[in-house]
Amino acid sequence: MDGQTAGAQSIRFNAPVSIVSGASIVGKKEGEGPLRDAFDLIGEDPMFGTDSWEAAESTLQKETAGLAIAKAGLKNWQIRAIYAGDLLAQSVASSFGIAELGIPVYGLYGACSTMGEALSLGAMAVAGGYGEYVLALTSSHFASAEKEFRFPLAYGNQRPLSATWTVTGSGACVLGRKDAKAQIAGVTTGKIVDYGLKDPLNMGACMAPAACDTIYQNFMDFNRMPEDYDQIITGDLGKVGQQILWDLLAEKGYDISGRHMDCGLKIYDGKTQDTHSGGSGCGCAATVFVSYVLPKIESGEWKRVLFVPTGALMSKVSFNEGQSVPGIAHGVVVESAGKGEG
Amino acid sequence: MDGQTAGAQSIRFNAPVSIVSGASIVGKKEGEGPLRDAFDLIGEDPMFGTDSWEAAESTLQKETAGLAIAKAGLKNWQIRAIYAGDLLAQSVASSFGIAELGIPVYGLYGACSTMGEALSLGAMAVAGGYGEYVLALTSSHFASAEKEFRFPLAYGNQRPLSATWTVTGSGACVLGRKDAKAQIAGVTTGKIVDYGLKDPLNMGACMAPAACDTIYQNFMDFNRMPEDYDQIITGDLGKVGQQILWDLLAEKGYDISGRHMDCGLKIYDGKTQDTHSGGSGCGCAATVFVSYVLPKIESGEWKRVLFVPTGALMSKVSFNEGQSVPGIAHGVVVESAGKGEG
Repeated sequence: MDGQTAGAQSIRFNAPVSIVSGASIVGKKEGEGPLRDAFDLIGEDPMFGTDSWEAAESTLQKETAGLAIAKAGLKNWQIRAIYAGDLLAQSVASSFGIAELGIPVYGLYGACSTMGEALSLGAMAVAGGYGEYVLALTSSHFASAEKEFRFPLAYGNQRPLSATWTVTGSGACVLGRKDAKAQIAGVTTGKIVDYGLKDPLNMGACMAPAACDTIYQNFMDFNRMPEDYDQIITGDLGKVGQQILWDLLAEKGYDISGRHMDCGLKIYDGKTQDTHSGGSGCGCAATVFVSYVLPKIESGEWKRVLFVPTGALMSKVSFNEGQSVPGIAHGVVVESAGKGEG
Repeated sequence: MDGQTAGAQSIRFNAPVSIVSGASIVGKKEGEGPLRDAFDLIGEDPMFGTDSWEAAESTLQKETAGLAIAKAGLKNWQIRAIYAGDLLAQSVASSFGIAELGIPVYGLYGACSTMGEALSLGAMAVAGGYGEYVLALTSSHFASAEKEFRFPLAYGNQRPLSATWTVTGSGACVLGRKDAKAQIAGVTTGKIVDYGLKDPLNMGACMAPAACDTIYQNFMDFNRMPEDYDQIITGDLGKVGQQILWDLLAEKGYDISGRHMDCGLKIYDGKTQDTHSGGSGCGCAATVFVSYVLPKIESGEWKRVLFVPTGALMSKVSFNEGQSVPGIAHGVVVESAGKGEG
């Protein structure tokens, strides 16, 4: 039981935890992007058959959870707990989405880093023997997020080029002790990092220092170099944040530019989809991980990746009160089964 | 590592996790109530030296965390992770409160059940070998909660007798592997329970079904009767919710009335403090647990209690859209050391 720690902020599981299945459902715009063929389902109706943006996001989350459980060949009662979160105040997308599944729930809030938090805590639960299967689940919705954080859609505000576009989508992974082709070998828990930046329309810059902190700490804790990962995958730094991350890590002596991808830059075609700096939201990292990253690990194309969803910790109130936008990033080491975690 | 499960929703730790220290800081009104001599500190200034209610709550949380760590005889770097949450949108009280502690953070949202969630996940981490010490931490503040959920203070709205009064306070526990007089022997993870009630000024009624569900499940999973606990302690059901809980459990054949206490009914003097149904908020269960419950376990007066913080899952938006107020409750089995969890 003891000794599943590594360095100052990381956990190295004695027995890696399997990613038994993954599911992703997205909205129309995401379904028109480069990953259109990789998602499980694309909803043509942005309301997902409901009468509010929040209910739409709840439905998205419920359907994605159900799909992941079905793909794992399981029934709801076999899932010991759900680790879930979203961006809305008091996490209502999750609460109303998963209530009827009848599964015990731990509600999480890590802004857009929440999928990293959910995979971390879920893997810790399985590795600790607290359940055979758990579910990690997050969502975001463009319209519910605009309503929560920004302007009424009908106002048609102009967005600076540093702004990101909130992904309409939900991603879910069943974690468990069953054999699978991808597994979580370790995690690096993020600290809150605050460089004092205050622009909520440049969240990439706000989150990049946290991503740098977690990636650097992961290298230290596991005694690794960037080359020990086939890919280092951040959540939603976008174009602006990506460059800052590269620069910050270069200052520490690490060049990750050749093996870095950002989910926010992968999900949309920046040239044709008018998404400016890229995609964002809890659903961004989650859907790109499930649809694009996981298959490459399962096929063995990538042997080991560091998945680092990034979150900007702010609210309307904190912004209006002139507070900065601190960042947080949680790192998850995912390996192709048989690779053997060193 | 295996087999740390009990029944359908519970965990029984092979090695119980110590509650190494606890700290509580409250506001002036709480400091005038029945537990006035039990809290570590009482703040006379509701702003806690800041210029906004949110910053006040952040300060409250930061000071309480620091006090719990100091009482455990530890330094910040020895705390492997903080499990923290509050009631505000995007959990900003926590994010801005604990950033400067420099400790890795898992942000949680379980409404007023969050202390149960934090103690559960924190104990799971320590028992799993993921760190020698972790911190469970929550807060609420009357004024920030009124601003978040209800009316401007200056409006002076009338409150029905079923309404509760949000506690200004923060509670923190250091959990770890060091010997201590109180320990967490097991947990029961709550489901979201929705009876369709919609009155946010009667949250006791909204949460009582969830409390019933978790307490009943705890009895089933551990094969226990109410008499196996010296006390069953809910978070903030208040007068109205307490009676509903007793009635719901009586329908299932369990009478807990002789050994039940509710933190919301303990923290204020209902006769003189004009708090109507009782206290509520993440800080209610947390401060009463630390100041009143923990000492009784440490002294051996209570050998085993079931601590069940209760949460109402709602937001301004979900209320305005006509949604119900589902409840959730997380159960934590706390024992006097040496008792031996059966």
